[in-house]
Amino acid sequence: MPSQTIRYAVFIASMAGLYLSAAMLVPAAMDFYFGNPDWQVFTVSAFTVGAICLASATANRGVPAPFSRRLGFLVVNFLWITLSVTGAIPLYLSTLGLDPADALFESVSAVTTTGATVISGLDSVPPGLLLWRSMLQWFGGIGIVAMGLLVLPFLKVGGFTVFKMESSDTSEKPFARFAVFVRAFFAIYIGLTVVCTILYAVLGMSEFDAVNHAMTTMATGGFSTHDASFGAFQSPALIWTGTIFMAIAGLPFSVLILFAVRGRLDALRDPQILAYGCILALMTLILALSLRLSEGESFGMALTHSAFNIVSVVTTTGYASLDYTLWGPFAVALFFLATFLGGCSGSTAGGIKAYRIVIIFSSIRSGLMRLIYPNSVRPVRYGSVVVEPEMQRSVFLFVCAYFGIWAFGAIALAATGLDIETALSGSITALANVGPGVGPVIGPAGNFSSLTDTAKLILVFLMLLGRLEILAVLVLLIPAFWRE
Amino acid sequence: MPSQTIRYAVFIASMAGLYLSAAMLVPAAMDFYFGNPDWQVFTVSAFTVGAICLASATANRGVPAPFSRRLGFLVVNFLWITLSVTGAIPLYLSTLGLDPADALFESVSAVTTTGATVISGLDSVPPGLLLWRSMLQWFGGIGIVAMGLLVLPFLKVGGFTVFKMESSDTSEKPFARFAVFVRAFFAIYIGLTVVCTILYAVLGMSEFDAVNHAMTTMATGGFSTHDASFGAFQSPALIWTGTIFMAIAGLPFSVLILFAVRGRLDALRDPQILAYGCILALMTLILALSLRLSEGESFGMALTHSAFNIVSVVTTTGYASLDYTLWGPFAVALFFLATFLGGCSGSTAGGIKAYRIVIIFSSIRSGLMRLIYPNSVRPVRYGSVVVEPEMQRSVFLFVCAYFGIWAFGAIALAATGLDIETALSGSITALANVGPGVGPVIGPAGNFSSLTDTAKLILVFLMLLGRLEILAVLVLLIPAFWRE
Repeated sequence: MPSQTIRYAVFIASMAGLYLSAAMLVPAAMDFYFGNPDWQVFTVSAFTVGAICLASATANRGVPAPFSRRLGFLVVNFLWITLSVTGAIPLYLSTLGLDPADALFESVSAVTTTGATVISGLDSVPPGLLLWRSMLQWFGGIGIVAMGLLVLPFLKVGGFTVFKMESSDTSEKPFARFAVFVRAFFAIYIGLTVVCTILYAVLGMSEFDAVNHAMTTMATGGFSTHDASFGAFQSPALIWTGTIFMAIAGLPFSVLILFAVRGRLDALRDPQILAYGCILALMTLILALSLRLSEGESFGMALTHSAFNIVSVVTTTGYASLDYTLWGPFAVALFFLATFLGGCSGSTAGGIKAYRIVIIFSSIRSGLMRLIYPNSVRPVRYGSVVVEPEMQRSVFLFVCAYFGIWAFGAIALAATGLDIETALSGSITALANVGPGVGPVIGPAGNFSSLTDTAKLILVFLMLLGRLEILAVLVLLIPAFWRE
Repeated sequence: MPSQTIRYAVFIASMAGLYLSAAMLVPAAMDFYFGNPDWQVFTVSAFTVGAICLASATANRGVPAPFSRRLGFLVVNFLWITLSVTGAIPLYLSTLGLDPADALFESVSAVTTTGATVISGLDSVPPGLLLWRSMLQWFGGIGIVAMGLLVLPFLKVGGFTVFKMESSDTSEKPFARFAVFVRAFFAIYIGLTVVCTILYAVLGMSEFDAVNHAMTTMATGGFSTHDASFGAFQSPALIWTGTIFMAIAGLPFSVLILFAVRGRLDALRDPQILAYGCILALMTLILALSLRLSEGESFGMALTHSAFNIVSVVTTTGYASLDYTLWGPFAVALFFLATFLGGCSGSTAGGIKAYRIVIIFSSIRSGLMRLIYPNSVRPVRYGSVVVEPEMQRSVFLFVCAYFGIWAFGAIALAATGLDIETALSGSITALANVGPGVGPVIGPAGNFSSLTDTAKLILVFLMLLGRLEILAVLVLLIPAFWRE
């Protein structure tokens, strides 16, 4: 590894840290306005961290390293570590009195758009800190979509070939003009957040709640300003608005961009969108019916809460409109397994993701056909497109690594003394960047504050692994990566 | 599907049912000798079921259908269904008073060598019935090894290519003479069972216990004649003997045959055996150390019980020398995840199996290397042999289907009212043919009697799916399978 490569990656990460330091002035201003002493923490953090990042950026400035895969992997890893640490500093120094592991956990949970929290008593936390958490999630959301659209394709990790397939599906190059595309992406992310804020406010949230929840909705993050999460707002209109915006945030941004820039909806024929829609509709319906039958809930309320909480978990947002783990063992099992799934590629959602599920189902079908007709050629298809073996392999590798790391994570969490339900669901909810688990400790009615520091650091590692699609982190553990 | 094919498959299954009916005369004789009224049940069952099977065999006798894959799949499915139903009949009619679902569950658990039981109060069950359960497991063990060595290879399901690899590894065809091979296989299975019986008896078991446990050890089945399972024998010598014979039963029979026929040990270099040994040693050691530290157990006793119970779960036997779920959350998580693994291909063990784990690890390694050096060719290796893409695909398909069916099974079990721990571990312990799960209901100290009939039938389906390597059952669900 040439030192020029490492220095350039440090330079990029330092610049990101610099921007994030500048962003600290927003909560500083808010706390200053409301007379909260934390404005000093944010201001001092902004200038100290900003100075360090500026120094580091200056020291590592120079001729940009030529683009290489190794540079790409370094950059994404360094970026998320920088965002995590920078985000944690004001949380650690604030009047909340978090210890370092707690502050790091909260910050990583934010920038990975997971949404698990160690803070209880959110309703009485000063507004600047709440806003900072929400901003970190919103930035994390921008970061992950940008990474998925602009960086990971070149690293052949994640949804690369899907986008190639999409573009070969249409008659012209959809994103020919790069600048239009980047501008459209920011415009849509910001635009949707603004629309969501307005709707939330109109339908009954305070302006502050509306801004915070809109940011964490669009990031599929799930941080709330209330311990009761979305349960603080018992209006069906608000709950359905949240459901719809979470579902939109789980769609590929490329589809939203195509729609916004060209008014075209044909990208909706992408098979992963069909799969994603079917998963959401089917799980919601089954859960609502089971609630209607077992709990005697009215079908309307059962559907409202089923839809909200299923969409919340499948899109890896992690809000809860109530404690769904009280809905009995079937609901608990359904939510546990929904934690694995995830939204579409090219969105802010984590998890296995719908396009991989489509490819796995097609592979199993094709494999069974080959068992009957061994000499026939039955290609694996993604919609009408044949999936190349390289792409199939990358999907299977991801799935195996995903289950393997989930298992190791669960064993490690159990070794810190957590019961098996908490260990199994804690490991996957962190790896899939969902947020809440099941069970009394880390379920939707609990939080992560009672865990040991070791458990929190294991979860921090799992959240970062999951956010960077696992392989982009594991690759750093191979000695060959660091060789000249 | 030509009707000749179906008729020939029915003929083969009927012949197997006929042999199994004849075998009922053994427990009949035993119960008659001990003056137990169940001798009538066994005798009546033997003649009734035998007559039905004979009639069916005669009716479907004729020109054998030409060998085809579809015939193979039909035969293995029909065989296991016939063994399951035939085995259940005397259990249903006996003085135990089992209802049909219980009798079927017990029989399927036996012939799939799972070892989960719905009978409590085993210590007072008449000897003929206990012997029948053990015999069913022993036959199931023979059946599965024969199927793995002789049938599945032609169907390209399971460990086929591994054996091809092994043979290409040696200078000559190891199994050139088919008759020698089949004879050697039976001789070894019977021989090991006899040696195991003698050792168990010498070391303190009653002759009856020794015969029963030797049969269920070699089948990696795990049925016991005591509610306390192997815990009824608190002698370290017996426990270690059980450990060693379970570990042998989890080895590929091809290796044992090569050793017995030619005195050659070189097949021990098979990478799956190395992986299998490392998994057993590592998990045992970690568990023993954690017990030594957390429970203050002497290291010798910690090692004895760790080795026995880890080997029992990984080889999918399912004995318990004590209730290891009382060893705290770390042990529970370790045992839960050990349930997924399984022994070697070509053995009586179920689960993912060691050779698939070897191929998955090599694939992940090769995939990570390709991320760094995209244009280099890094083949996936199994030891020194390159694994063909077809074989890689079949491993990945199995793993995806395995996790998918585990998830569906767990949701279905939870819908019957089981808590999430029981649902998740019940689904995998049935699918991997292990036996006990974790948790108070189906853990090593519990049994499956309290489950609803629906839950028992779900588990029956999972046990059969797992035993037939999943794909050999799923293939029957494809309409194309049944077309002319």
